Amino acid sequence: MKESVSIGLMGLGVVGSRVAQVLMERRDMISSRVGVPIALAKVLVRDPHKKRSVHIVPLITLESKEITQNPVIDIVVELMGGEDPATSYIREALSCGKHVVTANKEVIAKYGPELLALAAKKGVGLLFESSVGGGIPLVYPLTREFCLDRIESIIAIINGTTNFILTQMAKGADFISALKNAQELGYAEPDPQNDIQGLDCAYKLSILATLGFRNIIHPHEVYTEGISKLRPRDFEYAQELGYTIKLLSIAKDEGGYVEARVHPTLIPQSSSLAEVDGVYNAVQVQGDLVGKVMFYGEGAGASPTSSAVISDIIDAAQKVVREVKGQTIDLRQEKPLRPMGEVRTRYYLRMRAEDKPGVLAQIAQVLGDNEISISSVIQKETSSGSAELVIMTHIASEGKMRRAIQEIELLPSVLQIESFIRVED
Amino acid sequence: MKESVSIGLMGLGVVGSRVAQVLMERRDMISSRVGVPIALAKVLVRDPHKKRSVHIVPLITLESKEITQNPVIDIVVELMGGEDPATSYIREALSCGKHVVTANKEVIAKYGPELLALAAKKGVGLLFESSVGGGIPLVYPLTREFCLDRIESIIAIINGTTNFILTQMAKGADFISALKNAQELGYAEPDPQNDIQGLDCAYKLSILATLGFRNIIHPHEVYTEGISKLRPRDFEYAQELGYTIKLLSIAKDEGGYVEARVHPTLIPQSSSLAEVDGVYNAVQVQGDLVGKVMFYGEGAGASPTSSAVISDIIDAAQKVVREVKGQTIDLRQEKPLRPMGEVRTRYYLRMRAEDKPGVLAQIAQVLGDNEISISSVIQKETSSGSAELVIMTHIASEGKMRRAIQEIELLPSVLQIESFIRVED
Repeated sequence: MKESVSIGLMGLGVVGSRVAQVLMERRDMISSRVGVPIALAKVLVRDPHKKRSVHIVPLITLESKEITQNPVIDIVVELMGGEDPATSYIREALSCGKHVVTANKEVIAKYGPELLALAAKKGVGLLFESSVGGGIPLVYPLTREFCLDRIESIIAIINGTTNFILTQMAKGADFISALKNAQELGYAEPDPQNDIQGLDCAYKLSILATLGFRNIIHPHEVYTEGISKLRPRDFEYAQELGYTIKLLSIAKDEGGYVEARVHPTLIPQSSSLAEVDGVYNAVQVQGDLVGKVMFYGEGAGASPTSSAVISDIIDAAQKVVREVKGQTIDLRQEKPLRPMGEVRTRYYLRMRAEDKPGVLAQIAQVLGDNEISISSVIQKETSSGSAELVIMTHIASEGKMRRAIQEIELLPSVLQIESFIRVED
Repeated sequence: MKESVSIGLMGLGVVGSRVAQVLMERRDMISSRVGVPIALAKVLVRDPHKKRSVHIVPLITLESKEITQNPVIDIVVELMGGEDPATSYIREALSCGKHVVTANKEVIAKYGPELLALAAKKGVGLLFESSVGGGIPLVYPLTREFCLDRIESIIAIINGTTNFILTQMAKGADFISALKNAQELGYAEPDPQNDIQGLDCAYKLSILATLGFRNIIHPHEVYTEGISKLRPRDFEYAQELGYTIKLLSIAKDEGGYVEARVHPTLIPQSSSLAEVDGVYNAVQVQGDLVGKVMFYGEGAGASPTSSAVISDIIDAAQKVVREVKGQTIDLRQEKPLRPMGEVRTRYYLRMRAEDKPGVLAQIAQVLGDNEISISSVIQKETSSGSAELVIMTHIASEGKMRRAIQEIELLPSVLQIESFIRVED
């Protein structure tokens, strides 16, 4: 039995610093959970001149190999973020037989299956609970607690930045001012594109769906649409219709296909996800045994994330002490991804049209020709004299809906299709 | 390394039958997770003449020792329910070095700490994820994922029967007809007392709080009040005040004391728990690192419960195969329970009084003398000519509130205090 466990930490940003602090402040608690003393041995930083806590300074290194290849180190904790060089450091650490704990959603989404296979080959663990949903337990429930369930769907709000913006917009703010507000409060990055465009969600959904369905879904395969085109008017109409708008990450396993998409979505005000406001995250999982289960909490932030990182560290440390192999996760690539054109859902359309008789009939005709039936219509006069039309459809295929939109755009009396948003009940 | 894992199942009721069925139907899936074949070896039943699946018949035994002391059996799965003889069977199985999986909340609440100590001594696991919240992951998050957090509070709706009844009452039903409806739908037992009186919640809260705070709280220490005294009028007033009524299980770790209580509670309509309707359960955990996390799902039912039971079986089986000791949970008994009289919360009072000047002033005087301040008052005439008064207070101590109630009852103009319900914001 090993008599102590040494940790190498890579990255000392907001999360890294919090993890280092908690590791030091709660060392006794952690050591008692693990059964032997556990200590931070090395910390990789980029800038050696930055002011840091005195306790950290003696541990600092600028050389990644002093961690990844250091025979003293048992567990490598990667908290640098970004694809490079994090991926190669993780690969190197696993190759050297070290357990790896990471919060890096980009690396896990893109290279998780490969890295998990490498970890299994080396008999070590690759743990990444903190990569999705901050401190909310998701990876463990999906891989362990529900491992006998056939997971049917995962529907989630997993980006706090965009959920904060949409919550502001539901209260009447426009996109630009809601984004600015989020930036001022530190909820959005100075360059918010990864969040706004849905890429962050695509990474996280790829991880959740791959684990839940045990079927590899690459992040570039996830259909991804951001929130920047949403307008206050859409929130007003949504409310009038009994809905609210959220950026949903949706994965389904149905009829021999898997489905994975991130897009703004109208959801009924009465649904549990509609209540998830501000920077909170929620993930709803439907399994054939467990039924509908939902997890809710702060999806980001240094403290919640560090809670999950340290729980993974303790898990890895217990394996080090007992000389037990890391948990393997068996992933396949059996089921193809359903092409977006074959996805079936409901739609919300908002358009401007000439205010004259017969326009609605023409639009309804185009929809009907494409086998799309209308569930509700709102028509209002606008100040410019044109009419604003909002149409909600019943379930239709995305391909037919897109063809119908092209045809509607060609109608002489239709001035512009201004919004096209999917609806999930 | 062991080449196969054998399971002894005790109890073949609704959950036991479902577990047996899933173990058989998904044997390949389970064996592939475990790494070696896993099979049901023996099943203990009470009635040998009952009609059963043909696959089960050859495995049936009426002798508990054929399971608890059988050297062939690695894992004992106890799904009989009730305190006796389940407790002695579990004790015997652990003593014989077998891992034990149980869904028995009563046994775990009453004897969990003792049985966990026995399991630790024997180097085996005692797993009970399914004892609280059906398939919702709770035991694992509290003992592992949040093991470094200081858990500050656990607030939960953990009894589907009463939550179904309260949901019906919020829609206007009276208690008796809502209970009858629950019984007809199979959501309430023919003898519903354990649920209605809050005892089922007390067991579950004792388990959650003991694990979360790592401080033993016996179920008989949990202050427990059921739902049978609630009246439709209370739901109407709650709604008027912006609240709803739920049977909450509340545990807090504050100021050197732990607190554990189960009682009907007014909660704001805007709170996440207010949205939990019907037989669903929700558990909200507040930790100093992880922040507020909520878990939601079906808290009972054969399939959700069997999902958790089988996940525990796989966990135990992996330990059998790798010859690894069971996880120990370090529980203490450091912090005393806060006496109910010292609990501080807000209160809702409904009373009938004579409809004459000065009554409200007298009541307010009594409350003021006991350092209780009023936050809102509703006074209505009743058909009988008396007045109905509803008072919501600010935070006050339970002891002072009870003294005030005794004094109010002595006021000649007060006819009767009809409801006394705590409020949680």
